[in-house]
Amino acid sequence: MPEGQARTVFFISDGTGITAETLGHSLLTQFEGIRFRQVRIPFVSSLAQARDCLTQIQEAARRDGIRPIVITTLMDPNIGKLLQGADALFLDFFETFIVPLEDELGAKSSHTIGRSHGQASSQDYTNRIEAVNFTLAHDDGASDRNLDKAEVILVGVSRSGKTPTSLYLAMQFGIRAANYPLIPEDFERKKLPEVLYRHRDKLYGLTITPERLHQIRTERRPDSKYASLANCRFEVQEAQKLMEREGVRWMDSTTKSIEEIAATIMQEVKLDRHVF
Amino acid sequence: MPEGQARTVFFISDGTGITAETLGHSLLTQFEGIRFRQVRIPFVSSLAQARDCLTQIQEAARRDGIRPIVITTLMDPNIGKLLQGADALFLDFFETFIVPLEDELGAKSSHTIGRSHGQASSQDYTNRIEAVNFTLAHDDGASDRNLDKAEVILVGVSRSGKTPTSLYLAMQFGIRAANYPLIPEDFERKKLPEVLYRHRDKLYGLTITPERLHQIRTERRPDSKYASLANCRFEVQEAQKLMEREGVRWMDSTTKSIEEIAATIMQEVKLDRHVF
Repeated sequence: MPEGQARTVFFISDGTGITAETLGHSLLTQFEGIRFRQVRIPFVSSLAQARDCLTQIQEAARRDGIRPIVITTLMDPNIGKLLQGADALFLDFFETFIVPLEDELGAKSSHTIGRSHGQASSQDYTNRIEAVNFTLAHDDGASDRNLDKAEVILVGVSRSGKTPTSLYLAMQFGIRAANYPLIPEDFERKKLPEVLYRHRDKLYGLTITPERLHQIRTERRPDSKYASLANCRFEVQEAQKLMEREGVRWMDSTTKSIEEIAATIMQEVKLDRHVF
Repeated sequence: MPEGQARTVFFISDGTGITAETLGHSLLTQFEGIRFRQVRIPFVSSLAQARDCLTQIQEAARRDGIRPIVITTLMDPNIGKLLQGADALFLDFFETFIVPLEDELGAKSSHTIGRSHGQASSQDYTNRIEAVNFTLAHDDGASDRNLDKAEVILVGVSRSGKTPTSLYLAMQFGIRAANYPLIPEDFERKKLPEVLYRHRDKLYGLTITPERLHQIRTERRPDSKYASLANCRFEVQEAQKLMEREGVRWMDSTTKSIEEIAATIMQEVKLDRHVF
């Protein structure tokens, strides 16, 4: 392989390929010196489509001068067999684990016996849509109605990451996540917004460093008092004092990914996912 | 194992465990007759925490009368080694593929040489937050400003799934996805909303069966004209005619999961993910 050239990696799935790509990407990032050209091919459900993939794999091998890596999640073993005609390193995230699971459980998988379950259940879909709608209706303290139906209520100063985190919880896990801002009036009164007291056990706080908050707010409202570093310092400090005084659990979101923030909240508030 | 008893499955990760759980769950759903008790343990980052997991695994084995299944994504090999002291079926989604990849690439992974990259890059975080903010600002035709910055604009009748799909595209892939409703006035004029014409190549339509739409709308506004089956039939039919006339690509979302809808749009509009 000529120096500096990328190695081609195919993500091939008979479903969306989202899981294959997410896990595959986290494996590839472990190899820092190597450049990868990543090609995503979802919804490969016929042998004709599989043959087209085969052609693409072989073309990549010829062009790169080295065999590609093919990462797959395939329910249909016939498509897998066909693809394996190409010269490539094959890693199948599904097949690899189905066999040891069948042995351990002493049972055949639906996959093996020829049934496919690629599609999410309609209950999953409904749970997720309802959670997203709930979260949108209860974003930024927009409504106090039905707050008793929230599974968690995120609190924090403006731009501390409440909205994206709430939406991620709703979308990924089907959690009904409301969020409520902590504003200067709350710091003056040294009290949480009144409506939150009866939902205290569901509160979870997000905080952020004043420097990062200043940066984020400046992008939205440059040169405002709202965005000034002094004001960000004041608000963050007051919010943290308030949460400590009121016994609200909280975490610093500054250096965390949304997945990490969400998984931490799930663990600490003891929430169960409603969607897979 | 006494009949009807569940087999315990642990998802253990030194990160969020979200990938492990998603892939693991799709493997388990292949075994229909078997009940699983699923235990999620994320953020296992110390040997003390690993020892606590070990105890939980052994307790489950004793209680169930059969060894548990332990599904892991572990960056730290020391934690993996410690866990393997328990009597369980171990499936590590990470370790299993790192070794063949190292062989193929002729390189050691950062994992092997002792560095960890569990945390998402701050660029990923920023892309995602910006996409979510963009999508919220351009939900349901809320703003025509900056529509030229949208990567895709979903169109469809009210409650055809535009909002959750846009948010999923933004959250999961960092795509700036706007959405715009098609309303009875558009059907009368037999034209798309005027502002959309200059963004025609970015339009993608969602449609839904009238029966399902009727059901969804009835939950929100029971016994309204808006929710009536006759009106749903009319709107869906007119929206489809309008999209066909204007050459807007579209799909029926009725029996699809959000992942499937989003992955289809990514493929058809040729969008690349900005977030992993």
